[in-house]
Amino acid sequence: MAIQKPSIPKGTRDFSPLEVNRRQYIINTIKKQFVLFGFSPIETPSFENLSTLTGKYGEEGDRLIFKILNSGDYLAKVDEQLLTDKNSQKVISQISEKALRYDLTVPFARYVVQHQNEITFPFKRFQIQPVWRADRPQKGRFREFFQCDADVVGSDSLLQEVDFVQLYDSVFTELKTPVEIHINNRKILSGLAEVADISAQLIDFTVALDKLDKIGEEAVKEEMRGKGISNSAIEILSPLFSMNGDYKTQFAQLKEILKSSETGLKGIEELEFVFENTTNIGLQSAELVLNLTLARGLDYYTGAIFEVKAKIGEFSSSIGGGGRYDDLTGIFGLKDISGVGISFGLDRTYLVLEENNLFPALEDSTNIQALFINFGTKEAAEAMKLVKQLRQSGINTEVYPDDAKMKKQMGYADKKGIKKVILLGEKEIAEQKATVKDMISGEQTEVAFADLANALS
Amino acid sequence: MAIQKPSIPKGTRDFSPLEVNRRQYIINTIKKQFVLFGFSPIETPSFENLSTLTGKYGEEGDRLIFKILNSGDYLAKVDEQLLTDKNSQKVISQISEKALRYDLTVPFARYVVQHQNEITFPFKRFQIQPVWRADRPQKGRFREFFQCDADVVGSDSLLQEVDFVQLYDSVFTELKTPVEIHINNRKILSGLAEVADISAQLIDFTVALDKLDKIGEEAVKEEMRGKGISNSAIEILSPLFSMNGDYKTQFAQLKEILKSSETGLKGIEELEFVFENTTNIGLQSAELVLNLTLARGLDYYTGAIFEVKAKIGEFSSSIGGGGRYDDLTGIFGLKDISGVGISFGLDRTYLVLEENNLFPALEDSTNIQALFINFGTKEAAEAMKLVKQLRQSGINTEVYPDDAKMKKQMGYADKKGIKKVILLGEKEIAEQKATVKDMISGEQTEVAFADLANALS
Repeated sequence: MAIQKPSIPKGTRDFSPLEVNRRQYIINTIKKQFVLFGFSPIETPSFENLSTLTGKYGEEGDRLIFKILNSGDYLAKVDEQLLTDKNSQKVISQISEKALRYDLTVPFARYVVQHQNEITFPFKRFQIQPVWRADRPQKGRFREFFQCDADVVGSDSLLQEVDFVQLYDSVFTELKTPVEIHINNRKILSGLAEVADISAQLIDFTVALDKLDKIGEEAVKEEMRGKGISNSAIEILSPLFSMNGDYKTQFAQLKEILKSSETGLKGIEELEFVFENTTNIGLQSAELVLNLTLARGLDYYTGAIFEVKAKIGEFSSSIGGGGRYDDLTGIFGLKDISGVGISFGLDRTYLVLEENNLFPALEDSTNIQALFINFGTKEAAEAMKLVKQLRQSGINTEVYPDDAKMKKQMGYADKKGIKKVILLGEKEIAEQKATVKDMISGEQTEVAFADLANALS
Repeated sequence: MAIQKPSIPKGTRDFSPLEVNRRQYIINTIKKQFVLFGFSPIETPSFENLSTLTGKYGEEGDRLIFKILNSGDYLAKVDEQLLTDKNSQKVISQISEKALRYDLTVPFARYVVQHQNEITFPFKRFQIQPVWRADRPQKGRFREFFQCDADVVGSDSLLQEVDFVQLYDSVFTELKTPVEIHINNRKILSGLAEVADISAQLIDFTVALDKLDKIGEEAVKEEMRGKGISNSAIEILSPLFSMNGDYKTQFAQLKEILKSSETGLKGIEELEFVFENTTNIGLQSAELVLNLTLARGLDYYTGAIFEVKAKIGEFSSSIGGGGRYDDLTGIFGLKDISGVGISFGLDRTYLVLEENNLFPALEDSTNIQALFINFGTKEAAEAMKLVKQLRQSGINTEVYPDDAKMKKQMGYADKKGIKKVILLGEKEIAEQKATVKDMISGEQTEVAFADLANALS
């Protein structure tokens, strides 16, 4: 066979031992809090039936779903005219029945409906798995990435929103990362659309508003005008961009604007509940920020929406987000199940911790603590017996596999950052003592076999 | 949109909280030993370039690889004649550039070559990730399943084989599962082919031999005859099927048979080294078994081969396997790197533990330890403050989200197996005491807020 120059697909990554350990540190921190907060883990398949995913993420989303080619003679039954026309779009459903998971929320909705008789509601689940999107790769955005989601379905209590604020606070406090938790409510945005008389254009309005961070106020207004939102409507919406002061001040102003909209006032009431309870309970390090221009892309949100931003470093994209959705399971046949959930972005959180040197010293977390130098077959055989005992005492250890030159073996220990090297020659075996060399100080100590575990731990 | 009846693709699975926790128990046990044995974790992308995988698993393997459809107008550049001919096979490479990982070994070989300058050899890595095969699903065989692999590359020392026997022993001892570790050596099989003068048919010989467990001796011989292996050759190979006694006795017989084959004698020598050292070091619960009919399917093995079988229960398939391969990285341009590795089958190990009731009580490992009954907005707000403190003390707890009827709230606690329920009404708040109800005994105790963490842990 010809030699292939190895590479991996665009937007995917290999993870080295250090990177795996750092990612695992973040995942373990999140998972620990998920459990403390009463969430149980589930896992769903990496690929779903294509029909389960299609139509759930908008037209753009449908394009970004990775489809899996059917096995076997997959072209046999395809409509010949479509092939002749090279109609890529219409051929998809005839040659692909499965697709890679695009997020964890739709598979979760599918899971809830499919397993509704085994589930106790309200159902609190967490799920930490990769998802795939055929997006254009850029900093912090990959074609394969992990999502860490916690959701509750089957309760419309606002205590859930309050608890999710606590959950974000607990996780990012443990990760030593101060964050702002931005919060808004879709009902407020609906109310504003009502009073501006643009309810029919609610989605255009929120889609434009969602870009505020990226393109600025003027461009957002320009986009709204482009979508046919009148200048007078934009005038009515304008206070959105200039409102400030603490949440109470802003709510007072907003109540005045929204006084004619029942939906809008309901949104304010819901947010007030979250703010009051959060103030009452307190936050460890995070800050809850009212952000009336927060819109979030996904259409299915109906109540509170969240987005988390780090307060340190240069990386300004959101590192988490979520919100309440009132009818996600409806499409799969289970009506009137309200849900609310949040997601942690593993890759972006990684970038923030890396940039700000917030990772603990994990370099050694899977490293060998002690290496036995190999002096030959007989000595190595004795070393293997000690290795077995030491591992049973919880010490990561190994024998160098070959009786290579000392320099080579020491070089291996050095490059791998192994802290102790153990010399076990004929003399040491006869005396039942090992010579332990500290790789940093260079100091050598004789340690009786029976004391070795203590000396190394 | 029309309502869809939810389902998942054939051969895939949803995992409930209990199943996730049980799988995690197995994974954590394996991972702990991998680290003690000096292996470091890596992760590779779920999909590789199709060309990286094609041709590495035989013709059958190529068919079973899940291909990912290219994005966008994927048909635009396809050869029109191939479409008209509906030539499914030839069109694949024109509409698919990526494919789901089929195992962890080939991606690992690709990783080693691609990152050879960052790696310290001998390189000991472990990798625990899902793989996908378009196989016919059956008991213990799925289209998405996890592999847990440990490999060493860059050393041909037989101490590695010895250490892998220890690794299997350590993992299955911790899992309380007595196992037989079957071992053979491909060089012995090559030697036998030499003395029977069928070296040109070595692969036919091993492929047939590999089926011995499933189809029996006579059918294996029949298959060999079908492949043109002569009766006189089969006569020479016959002792394979009848050899017994301890490993020393068998080796003595085998040396006689293989005396004219240098390769065969080398294979015996290698196995003797593994047996002698394993006897010297000792095993905790596993048994090392010489199995001269063990062949294993994959072509790339060149030395020792392993297969692990549980000694308990009805499930007789192998729950682990591996072996030495001398040139796996060659295809990617890195020659003369010997490797040896083993794999643990998560799903099959799960079946064995389940069948033999060997899972520890994990039902509660992510469960709520205490539920605060919700008596209304004010009381719940107070409860949330206590919940925050208790979680900081490591107690999994939550407030029931709604002030539903007591019966409903208690029913939730009961169904979820929550052990303690906390009543926090107006009176309790005034007195700064909570009433803790034990859900099993029904006993109620008054506990001061300050003592709550102790009382619950």
